[in-house]
Amino acid sequence: MSVTPATAASDSAAADISRATIEAAATRIAPFIIETPLVESPRLNDKLGIRLLVKAECLQHTGSFKLRGASNAVWSLDDTVKHVVAFSSGNHAQGVARAAASRGLQATIVMPKDSPAGKIEGTKAYGGTVILYDRYTESREEIGADLATRKQAHLIKPFDDVQVIAGQGTVGLEIATQAAAKNLTPDAIICCCGGGGLIAGMSIAASDMIPGVDIWAAEPEFYDDTRRSLSSGKIETADITMPSICDSIVTAQPGEITFPINKKLLSGSAVITDRDALQAVATAFKHLKIIIEPGGAAALAAVLTGQYPAGAKTVVAVASGGNIDAPMFQRALDEGPLF
Amino acid sequence: MSVTPATAASDSAAADISRATIEAAATRIAPFIIETPLVESPRLNDKLGIRLLVKAECLQHTGSFKLRGASNAVWSLDDTVKHVVAFSSGNHAQGVARAAASRGLQATIVMPKDSPAGKIEGTKAYGGTVILYDRYTESREEIGADLATRKQAHLIKPFDDVQVIAGQGTVGLEIATQAAAKNLTPDAIICCCGGGGLIAGMSIAASDMIPGVDIWAAEPEFYDDTRRSLSSGKIETADITMPSICDSIVTAQPGEITFPINKKLLSGSAVITDRDALQAVATAFKHLKIIIEPGGAAALAAVLTGQYPAGAKTVVAVASGGNIDAPMFQRALDEGPLF
Repeated sequence: MSVTPATAASDSAAADISRATIEAAATRIAPFIIETPLVESPRLNDKLGIRLLVKAECLQHTGSFKLRGASNAVWSLDDTVKHVVAFSSGNHAQGVARAAASRGLQATIVMPKDSPAGKIEGTKAYGGTVILYDRYTESREEIGADLATRKQAHLIKPFDDVQVIAGQGTVGLEIATQAAAKNLTPDAIICCCGGGGLIAGMSIAASDMIPGVDIWAAEPEFYDDTRRSLSSGKIETADITMPSICDSIVTAQPGEITFPINKKLLSGSAVITDRDALQAVATAFKHLKIIIEPGGAAALAAVLTGQYPAGAKTVVAVASGGNIDAPMFQRALDEGPLF
Repeated sequence: MSVTPATAASDSAAADISRATIEAAATRIAPFIIETPLVESPRLNDKLGIRLLVKAECLQHTGSFKLRGASNAVWSLDDTVKHVVAFSSGNHAQGVARAAASRGLQATIVMPKDSPAGKIEGTKAYGGTVILYDRYTESREEIGADLATRKQAHLIKPFDDVQVIAGQGTVGLEIATQAAAKNLTPDAIICCCGGGGLIAGMSIAASDMIPGVDIWAAEPEFYDDTRRSLSSGKIETADITMPSICDSIVTAQPGEITFPINKKLLSGSAVITDRDALQAVATAFKHLKIIIEPGGAAALAAVLTGQYPAGAKTVVAVASGGNIDAPMFQRALDEGPLF
């Protein structure tokens, strides 16, 4: 495994993101997003012996939290920018396509050709021009950077971007505010982690607003690069040839801006299997009545498999997206719920 | 078709329910229910050419709006009552079981033996004692009334009960308040209709708070007794031997308390087929990311098939419940979405 040390520049970028930055992002993106609910099931709570609140970002416009960061990035651009480019397995793709359209900009999105069909369809439906690539033999970063140069477009990275992280951080503001409105103080928050943009932004807001809250990542088997990076203290990589159904959080390594944040704010990372993810999707079908995609169900899967801090009584799990194709959902129903 | 004329007593009961009654119910049940969100999909809106807001009562605790009316009824009882009885295909069953448990009362629930398995399991999980009956050969009203007498229990009817209607009416308060918070004034609200308790209560609140709003029922094929009753001006019945997958809204006739309300406040009723319901369930899967059961999807199906008032630009459809078994959901996915 190669090691990419975080640079002074990325440490400085990380330090630029604060609760105030995230509150500014919340104001900027308010016209384009919805405040998603914390959902729960008394029956599931009884079975788990804790109070579990699920932050249903699958109900966000475009079907995932990615619209938040994309909207903050797009609406932070100066007026000279007319075209944006992004590379994404599908949720950032849809978020950027819709955010660009909301400001009248063109969007070109580079997507793996094995992305879920619904995600490719959605990106096109939101007005994006889609370019497919082979994620095992081609580098999306190179394709995206080349496109950005040729089209004089602005590249919106999926996680290693201060505006993107600040936008995703609005999830943390909402969790803290909504929990307080229910007179609840979460002991722990568990959130899926690919490149770490969502959990980094969310953690900055939540740790400031909920003193003492214990924040954990959840990652798929074979893609536990954040878990290993947290252990070693430096950026570790994953073997991206390994199979996973959690397409939305399959990334090669933690981000250079996100990792310094996560290193400071996370207690650790739970690891879940494909089967855990499918059972979590089926459990959400049965008890929570929301559609979650496998990667988006990683945090819920971590809770259902008992991976939350000992003694925690009130736990928030972020369900980051719901863009799952029907055949995969049927696979989850066949697998069945855990409770 | 036999005709049961509404009595002076039922007209008087109907007149007892006002926006103030419903606001009192909202205060009474607030600790036991959640405020469910209005969800929407920009993509679906673009395709429909309207702004469609779906009131996601499938996210309510117990998976349906029925907890509202059941909680209002249970918490309106005097302290001498220790046992409640209900008859229901499953959503009122779960609502009453949970509401009874919230006050420490026993609950016995009479359910058709062909109820969805998950609804029977849920009713037991919420602490109800379940008695199964054959809905083609036995009368649930007689069984329920007999049980109420023998156990000295209070019978909580599924819709023809002033407290139940007032509790369901809190859905209308929330729709009006949430739409106003989005600076929206709905032109039309469409809501599924079995016995008519939800739509009656909802309409009292919504018509008071949104002047001029056009309110429509949605009913399954063969069970369009409210449509025919609205046409004739008197209570018409349905042939309950006809097949329908919309188990939650398959009833023999409009209620004696609900019909006078609905006759006054509804413009008409849309009729949807089983296939329409399945396609609506699949459309909600794809675009809205919520789980709706077939009967709960009747209003959405009415909108997706174009059955909303001509000229309406902002339409609310109530998704009343999400208690659907996996095989039925798979059938919906196989049928596929309409958009």
